[in-house]
Amino acid sequence: MKKTLITLAVLNIASVAYADEGMWMPQQLPQVAKELKAAGLKLDPNSLTKLTEFPMGAIVSLGGCSASFVSPQGLVATNHHCVYGSVAYNSKPERNLLANGFLANSLEEELPAAPGSRIFVTKEVTNVSDKIIDKDVARLTGKKRVDAIEKNSKTLVAECEKDAGHRCNVYPYYGGLEFYMIKQMEIRDVRLVHAPAEGVGKFGGDTDNWMWPRHTGDYGFYRAYVSKDGKAADYSKDNVPYVPKHYLKLAKDGLKEGDFVMVLGYPGRTNRHRLPSEVAYTFDWNYPAFVKASGEALSIIAKETADSPDAKLKYASQVAGINNYYKNRQGMLDSYAGSDFLARKTKEHEELKTWINSNPARAKEFGDDIVQVEKLIAERDAQGKRDFFLERSFPRLLSTARALYRLANESTKPDAERKAGYQVRDLPRFKAGVEAVERNYVENVDKALVLNSLKQYAAQPAKDRNADFDSIMGIKDGMSEADLKALLDKIYAGSKLADKASRAAWLSAKPEDFKASDDSFIKAAVAMYPASLKREAEEEELAGKIQQSYANYMKAKIAYMKSKGQAVYPDANSTLRVTFGKVAGRDHGTADGLAWAAFTTVNGIPPKATGQGEFNAPAAQLAAIKAKDFGKYVDPHLKTVPVAYLATLDITGGNSGSAALNAKGELIGLAFDGTLDSIISDWDYNKANTRSIQVDLRYMLWQMKHVDKADRLIKEMGAE
Amino acid sequence: MKKTLITLAVLNIASVAYADEGMWMPQQLPQVAKELKAAGLKLDPNSLTKLTEFPMGAIVSLGGCSASFVSPQGLVATNHHCVYGSVAYNSKPERNLLANGFLANSLEEELPAAPGSRIFVTKEVTNVSDKIIDKDVARLTGKKRVDAIEKNSKTLVAECEKDAGHRCNVYPYYGGLEFYMIKQMEIRDVRLVHAPAEGVGKFGGDTDNWMWPRHTGDYGFYRAYVSKDGKAADYSKDNVPYVPKHYLKLAKDGLKEGDFVMVLGYPGRTNRHRLPSEVAYTFDWNYPAFVKASGEALSIIAKETADSPDAKLKYASQVAGINNYYKNRQGMLDSYAGSDFLARKTKEHEELKTWINSNPARAKEFGDDIVQVEKLIAERDAQGKRDFFLERSFPRLLSTARALYRLANESTKPDAERKAGYQVRDLPRFKAGVEAVERNYVENVDKALVLNSLKQYAAQPAKDRNADFDSIMGIKDGMSEADLKALLDKIYAGSKLADKASRAAWLSAKPEDFKASDDSFIKAAVAMYPASLKREAEEEELAGKIQQSYANYMKAKIAYMKSKGQAVYPDANSTLRVTFGKVAGRDHGTADGLAWAAFTTVNGIPPKATGQGEFNAPAAQLAAIKAKDFGKYVDPHLKTVPVAYLATLDITGGNSGSAALNAKGELIGLAFDGTLDSIISDWDYNKANTRSIQVDLRYMLWQMKHVDKADRLIKEMGAE
Repeated sequence: MKKTLITLAVLNIASVAYADEGMWMPQQLPQVAKELKAAGLKLDPNSLTKLTEFPMGAIVSLGGCSASFVSPQGLVATNHHCVYGSVAYNSKPERNLLANGFLANSLEEELPAAPGSRIFVTKEVTNVSDKIIDKDVARLTGKKRVDAIEKNSKTLVAECEKDAGHRCNVYPYYGGLEFYMIKQMEIRDVRLVHAPAEGVGKFGGDTDNWMWPRHTGDYGFYRAYVSKDGKAADYSKDNVPYVPKHYLKLAKDGLKEGDFVMVLGYPGRTNRHRLPSEVAYTFDWNYPAFVKASGEALSIIAKETADSPDAKLKYASQVAGINNYYKNRQGMLDSYAGSDFLARKTKEHEELKTWINSNPARAKEFGDDIVQVEKLIAERDAQGKRDFFLERSFPRLLSTARALYRLANESTKPDAERKAGYQVRDLPRFKAGVEAVERNYVENVDKALVLNSLKQYAAQPAKDRNADFDSIMGIKDGMSEADLKALLDKIYAGSKLADKASRAAWLSAKPEDFKASDDSFIKAAVAMYPASLKREAEEEELAGKIQQSYANYMKAKIAYMKSKGQAVYPDANSTLRVTFGKVAGRDHGTADGLAWAAFTTVNGIPPKATGQGEFNAPAAQLAAIKAKDFGKYVDPHLKTVPVAYLATLDITGGNSGSAALNAKGELIGLAFDGTLDSIISDWDYNKANTRSIQVDLRYMLWQMKHVDKADRLIKEMGAE
Repeated sequence: MKKTLITLAVLNIASVAYADEGMWMPQQLPQVAKELKAAGLKLDPNSLTKLTEFPMGAIVSLGGCSASFVSPQGLVATNHHCVYGSVAYNSKPERNLLANGFLANSLEEELPAAPGSRIFVTKEVTNVSDKIIDKDVARLTGKKRVDAIEKNSKTLVAECEKDAGHRCNVYPYYGGLEFYMIKQMEIRDVRLVHAPAEGVGKFGGDTDNWMWPRHTGDYGFYRAYVSKDGKAADYSKDNVPYVPKHYLKLAKDGLKEGDFVMVLGYPGRTNRHRLPSEVAYTFDWNYPAFVKASGEALSIIAKETADSPDAKLKYASQVAGINNYYKNRQGMLDSYAGSDFLARKTKEHEELKTWINSNPARAKEFGDDIVQVEKLIAERDAQGKRDFFLERSFPRLLSTARALYRLANESTKPDAERKAGYQVRDLPRFKAGVEAVERNYVENVDKALVLNSLKQYAAQPAKDRNADFDSIMGIKDGMSEADLKALLDKIYAGSKLADKASRAAWLSAKPEDFKASDDSFIKAAVAMYPASLKREAEEEELAGKIQQSYANYMKAKIAYMKSKGQAVYPDANSTLRVTFGKVAGRDHGTADGLAWAAFTTVNGIPPKATGQGEFNAPAAQLAAIKAKDFGKYVDPHLKTVPVAYLATLDITGGNSGSAALNAKGELIGLAFDGTLDSIISDWDYNKANTRSIQVDLRYMLWQMKHVDKADRLIKEMGAE
């Protein structure tokens, strides 16, 4: 299960281009037209470069997940785990949509998705490199550089967003050497149309997550709604289904091993050309710490929600998310442990430095930065280590209070001068986020999570702690867990922010209102504010220096790779990309002597189905399998209904829900996962191991028709 | 694990010839020369027809297992499970060779194999069809026909065996249409040279038996000894290693997927063209009953030997044998349950009948027998059902007593008139069998096994019981288990046959000595004798009728298949055969979504190794794997040492220990198993599923060199 990765894409990077590896920008596809044709693509590669034409025009983002229009009425197909939050949001103990699934039998029955749900339809992509790093910016350094980049970006964005109902963002590519502004229609009225039972959509749960063989029916449907005049609008009963300019057609023929397949979506982030020191920090310290903390968090949530089905539902989505990363990071660590990755990385970096220093002009242009970037990153990594527990020690509502107070302060400035994230354009999402607390917050769970981090934080020597935070929270050297618990009990008890109306009221409050409040979290937020601004400025100073050195390091690296005749595509940065390859099993699996078949089938479901927990296949489905009630969804070779298939596609987190298309550009499934022993490909691509996992369209349609009776949707998608 | 199958080959049959399927008689190979060349054989196919030339001259039988000479000093390579009985025979609680393995560091240290162990070197194969079914025999029917066939056979055998140290047997082919006499040198001084620890040779035990992936190092070594003048002889310290005319050379290069491979050995029995009624009887009644009885026997042995390491050792070989068939038959039943085998068989048989009846001449020649054979077989099957528990209700020593008394009676006749099995030529094996009781018999275990069968026998209605047996044992209607137990206690207590010397004395006793004895088992044997002779005569009468009808049915069937252009090879009958194919994984395994890689490697051993029981890999082996102490045995593609590989070879029980040869005729491993979901191939060949499992020569040599330090043997085999 891939999950949303908010782009931290200032430092995204470049990579070598070769078969199967490659998350191509649509406009780059003509560069690999020959490879695309050789792989079997029947469409004109040039047609894929046009974002508002078929098929790219049908591809949308959910902001962290990928999706696609599959009907002329704005029906959107994506993964079950991408609509999971909305299913959980609409679930009640007495109407457990997660467990039972949901099917709207008419437009009227379609349910509002979770607050903040969006469908982004890309409209324009513009190269704005020269406008972001203009000649003035090029001369700046540190925080001033960061501020100037942000200012230029905001100016462009503001201009772009004058077109109401759209959202514009500037994304850095190639480590900040290039910038593109992407304009997207932002559909705000998103409704849940259909999700199969959890025993289908999440079949296998965390046990099977990142695994093969896989039998997860990871699909679900949203619908985009707009005002009657076709504009993006907030939820309203009067809204109507959005009519997309393009939508995907369903493939009539099934896939078989060896067939061409491509995936169009929004991969979040890859790290294939990081510095050796970043690899060492990440794999030797950060991921191990993360895995440990995640394991602890999962135990705590399980314990604290044990007696409350309501609390369990509220934390279901977070548990899924933590589990997902927990397994992901552990998988990367396992691959790392057996690899020569760091040594290879170090050798490559030494070769780059040798290449730079072998030529006076190159030494002059890049020599300083290549030294400097390592120092700056070491500084940032030291901060990361120091603050690891601090960052996990903020009560959820204290973080909300801090965001609200920051909003009140930013709101005193003209919009253009406000910090990104606190501008008028950000308010709807901000507001939705503040509202959503209600649906996924339970005090005792939050407090237990915070206490666990806080006790580890408080055990650090005072020099590594944050004096400001200590003073406001009342933390002193040598405090016991009971002491810390008492501090938390007091601060939680002193706040009314758990109350929805109370939180909502602070959305429009002034700074003076905050200063006058005796709400414990608001008071803490106000007290922390000056120091946090100072800290932010210091971090931006460092970030500005890093950006500058890093961009130059990347420039050197790209030049070096070009000198070796290697083409370059930008690393993933949550923008629209195309990856192509073929349906393929693997000659080695994870157990010695076993290989991976390219397909799983429904025959594999009954042996896994335990009737409960993660393997709770619905009785109706099991009955249909037993009766071989397969209809026309039988694969001629497999003699049964395929469930999922492997392909040699280069995807990562953010690609979840991406449309998988055949050589004719027809929908043949949805990408939803990679496999545990290849996820280190995000850092270190491994051609022999890397496989994406797609749910087969035939399984989706079989389950919808033969089990869930979703004939309405099948018909809407133009099938029978 | 394949085990010896004593040939019941009167009714063996014929089959269609196509790629990968086929257990070819060596003399048939020129018929498939084209296919052999296409498959990759580099030798002249004609060279494989010469049994006394290379490489066939190096292939030997152990009487139930296959083997081959691998050195000029009579060193014989076979499976660990083929030397298992000899390892067990030499094991003591205080010197547990099974657990620790055995390696003779010199000729002097080589240990006598278990009594009765033999190495058979084929010298001549002669077509004797016209001498067995001569014109007189052709006119006979029933018991007279059986007796006449036996008489002709014995005459030929006696003449042949005038060449001392040789054993001759007449084998029927094509359901008794053809007969071949096979003359073999019978080496009687067989010694155990080397067997790896059980944690290697039987790694995976019954859990992994018939399974893939497989990590069993199923190899062991015997040596053939002869008198100083090169003749077969009983064990003597003065004997010397036999110098074979030919021995196999070890391959220098390893195999890879797709490579040609052939297996030369002695497959026991296949049943690919049985009548529909035989299929129904076997799969609907006999195998289910067998599986149930085997399960009970295993439980009883486990319980009765629980507190005695000595008893456990004594029954280890029987437990392995029962487990092996238990899993085999259950596997066949599982495949049968999901198949249309019986329906297809029935249809084919109907087509045959239609073909026969569509032509007056054919109807005249075959019409009666095709009806008759079904009736006769139904009669035999009814007897089989009736006597199922009876046959399992004889105490081991009562069976010994009956055999001894039969021997005494047969010995009163001239040798040529004695029943086969009781002739002078049979005495050494007979004697060894009587002696071997000592090594694998424990009274309480035997009694518990008999009681379990006896109570099921006694519960049958009197009409289905054997009145004679009931009267002698004292069995009456409605006896309780306790009653039966008391009967057994009494009869066991009344015999001295458990004593070795006592048994040995009876080997030379006269019938009158038996009649005068008050030993309980001897008395029972004498009392049962007349009725058992009568029963035998009745069974032979039926067998004679079946043989005649069945041969004619098979003649019709072969004619029918020829009319459809299909070539025919005889079904397996424990004679030397060749099967060829290639190294190949499988695109489907047993779990949905998983395929079978063609090779397993030592990397798969540590994850399975539990340090005890069936997965008790030796510490030294695990250390060598951990240290990657692989030497030259690393496969260039796999980057580690291969353990076992799959091939598309047509083997069955009896092929155990068969030499697997590459395209140049060099040894590249030993066949040792098939897989559970394809063992029904013995009845119903399935090209997509059938794979043989071979232990890779590289694993054998790696284990011998890097772990067991068997450098002496490696050097003897011409390697380093």
